[in-house]
Amino acid sequence: MFQAAAKTLSASCQAVSFSIRHYCRKTPTKLRISEALSGAKLGENVKVQGWIRSVRRQKSNLFLHVNDGSSLQSLQIVAGSQLSDPLLTFGSAVEVTGVLKESPHQKQPFELEADQLHVAGECNPMDFPFKIKERHSLEYIRQFPHLRCRTNAFSSLLRIRSEATTAINSYFKENGFVQIHTPVITSNDCEGAGELFQVEVKNEEGENFFSVPAFLTVSGQLHLEVMSGAFTRVYTFGPTFRAENSQSRRHLAEFYMVEAEVSFTQSLEDLTKVMEDLFKSATEHVLAHCAEDVDLFHKHVTPGHRDTLDVMMKRRFLVITYSEAIDILSRSSQKFAFPTNWGCDLQTEHEKYLVKHCGNIPVFVTDYPYDLKPFYARDNQDNPAHTAAAVDLLVPGVGELCGGSLREERLDLLRARLEEYLDLRRFGSVPHGGFGLGFERYLQCILGVDNIKDVIPFPRFSNSCLL
Amino acid sequence: MFQAAAKTLSASCQAVSFSIRHYCRKTPTKLRISEALSGAKLGENVKVQGWIRSVRRQKSNLFLHVNDGSSLQSLQIVAGSQLSDPLLTFGSAVEVTGVLKESPHQKQPFELEADQLHVAGECNPMDFPFKIKERHSLEYIRQFPHLRCRTNAFSSLLRIRSEATTAINSYFKENGFVQIHTPVITSNDCEGAGELFQVEVKNEEGENFFSVPAFLTVSGQLHLEVMSGAFTRVYTFGPTFRAENSQSRRHLAEFYMVEAEVSFTQSLEDLTKVMEDLFKSATEHVLAHCAEDVDLFHKHVTPGHRDTLDVMMKRRFLVITYSEAIDILSRSSQKFAFPTNWGCDLQTEHEKYLVKHCGNIPVFVTDYPYDLKPFYARDNQDNPAHTAAAVDLLVPGVGELCGGSLREERLDLLRARLEEYLDLRRFGSVPHGGFGLGFERYLQCILGVDNIKDVIPFPRFSNSCLL
Repeated sequence: MFQAAAKTLSASCQAVSFSIRHYCRKTPTKLRISEALSGAKLGENVKVQGWIRSVRRQKSNLFLHVNDGSSLQSLQIVAGSQLSDPLLTFGSAVEVTGVLKESPHQKQPFELEADQLHVAGECNPMDFPFKIKERHSLEYIRQFPHLRCRTNAFSSLLRIRSEATTAINSYFKENGFVQIHTPVITSNDCEGAGELFQVEVKNEEGENFFSVPAFLTVSGQLHLEVMSGAFTRVYTFGPTFRAENSQSRRHLAEFYMVEAEVSFTQSLEDLTKVMEDLFKSATEHVLAHCAEDVDLFHKHVTPGHRDTLDVMMKRRFLVITYSEAIDILSRSSQKFAFPTNWGCDLQTEHEKYLVKHCGNIPVFVTDYPYDLKPFYARDNQDNPAHTAAAVDLLVPGVGELCGGSLREERLDLLRARLEEYLDLRRFGSVPHGGFGLGFERYLQCILGVDNIKDVIPFPRFSNSCLL
Repeated sequence: MFQAAAKTLSASCQAVSFSIRHYCRKTPTKLRISEALSGAKLGENVKVQGWIRSVRRQKSNLFLHVNDGSSLQSLQIVAGSQLSDPLLTFGSAVEVTGVLKESPHQKQPFELEADQLHVAGECNPMDFPFKIKERHSLEYIRQFPHLRCRTNAFSSLLRIRSEATTAINSYFKENGFVQIHTPVITSNDCEGAGELFQVEVKNEEGENFFSVPAFLTVSGQLHLEVMSGAFTRVYTFGPTFRAENSQSRRHLAEFYMVEAEVSFTQSLEDLTKVMEDLFKSATEHVLAHCAEDVDLFHKHVTPGHRDTLDVMMKRRFLVITYSEAIDILSRSSQKFAFPTNWGCDLQTEHEKYLVKHCGNIPVFVTDYPYDLKPFYARDNQDNPAHTAAAVDLLVPGVGELCGGSLREERLDLLRARLEEYLDLRRFGSVPHGGFGLGFERYLQCILGVDNIKDVIPFPRFSNSCLL
């Protein structure tokens, strides 16, 4: 039965491969849609491949729009109606050969006059969850994790994400940072075991694989600090994990973090300068390389956000101390749900108020109460208000984007707080500091996307691990 | 007690910060060692920071070599003996200000004439596990995961690893691939649950965090295949996991993999071309940007490996079929531990023989027996020898570096093999294929490093998860 089916398929497959070979003899140049749209190989015989975004049938002509993910724009294909085929539907995959010409229409500069159309993969538009020419909401498309890359909004997001990754890596490279692949699996439980995922596999003898309990990393900081004892500038950029049981628009169980450590720091300014430069340089790069994709978000997802972003890019980021922040909050006429006295942690409502108060531009809050910060934050040894040299970067719409601190390098001070963590400091310890930036929050911030699940390819959160 | 200690420290700290401020008034330009070594700011007042690699005390002069991780080379510091300080020891961290001059010695073109030396972090050379001017073995330094970045060999490796990462990302970017961050946590158990790490966290109600069993990814292929339905070229580059209970020199529990998917493929050549181009382009980049670091390995770790690499770079990679490989093995006079008849999987001993037989250059082995390959490999529908369009790239010293295949896009053939995995193929499915490349094995291959644990910052394997 199976063999018979295979034989039939084998025959039909040979027919397909024959027609492919037939194309090959003419050896048209294979072009990406983005290349065709820029008029490469004008007048020449070319081949494009992609998915149909629209079909319009006229008496003598057939018009298709084909997209291959290389650009938000699709390429218009014009074909004689003799090439029409009922399988040419919204969503189907096609290969088109023909000649690239200037278009008589104003909508697009170039179009492809097809002489061959081959449906490589069919798509029944009745079953396909996205409808032609309909703008689906981000909430709706989120339900189809294996298909949402077919929508304009999400394919734009993925191109932006890829380009932002390049931009961040370029910034660090140009500034002499070495990229370190810090591990995902770690035996450290760094900052509180409550939010840790544990990694398990029992071998045949029923023992733990690593002999010790192992967890998914919540931060590459300790591993970067190891490296900052030999490299003055290091960074890592990869997945990080929190088992936070939250359904919020702000949290994921798996998210990407950029973390950097700088050795021989003298003050928090050594860090805030890197954070601001990183943000501005990466954003400039994304705006320059993904203009159309970014526009889609600024025009259709969050109208008005472009103005906010432009102001952020033009202005110097503000710096206020935690104590100044508390002053601002206390003098405010706004009612807050959480207390605002000195010593309290800043909540999202506070962060949002502070950003607004400062003119809707990013603001660094520095020198937090010593007791609010982890053991490794450098003691400012001030009084009566005892603070640590820690800093958060708050941005419009998102709140906390980065968090960092000078690290305590003084062995005696550390010893008083923590006995482990010491061997690192024994051999040529230096003043240093570092920070982390949430990559998804960065994307939310520049694009104005409200829900963090819409800026990551495959979101993981409590009760959801699709695919 | 603690407060008293803090006060004393506070006083001494103020003294330190005073001297730092004193430096600042002269505002010397801060230089990385690599910049100083290239003669930047010659004749100007500059400041460098780093760790002491050697100390030589003469009657009137003190000579230091200082390294900051920006280069394999250290900068020679010359200071009057009045600046000598017993704390200037091998391993200690220093800040040096002075004037950069041409060196009278042939060993180095430039040296720094110091007028200020500040020990930022002490190091007792008796406790420090590495000894001055001694070349420690990779095995020895592997025992000190938090300090091995201080050695020449491992800091070279880390610079090479960072640069190779840049090179791989650049290759894909230049060739129109979109980078996708495929997830680490997945509910797929893809290829056999035996080697999977499970991710667990029990919430208060004792339920699983994700509602379904969740695992660490063994491959981003499925997630890339999702994306290859909207983008003709995608790739991912990140950590991958295997719970293999192996202490071998070839396996890690956490390793980095480069994976790519290409849509609208016509033959395996669409993939082998990408693999060969990727290998050669990345290696050229690394050789050009990390010449000194690579030389360290080629001269001191595996003498002779440079010649092997040069041949690999010059020659076209060979392509043989699995059937030809079996022929070669069967006709060989060498005794193999594992059988070599048609249908048997190729073992490491076979792979090594084949590479040698082919002149010690990389060789693609294509068209493996259908039954040896996973369900998604495309059926060649040949007979009597039933094969699948799968390919492995074997390289000198390492064996399998890449594995890939055309993917079965024909719904009926897939349905016969597997009911799930189908929804992906329903909407505009296209012929496509992809491959994975083991990043650590790539580094082993170009550097000639025998043990995989020596090419990753923090190796994880059975019974070992240090830091």
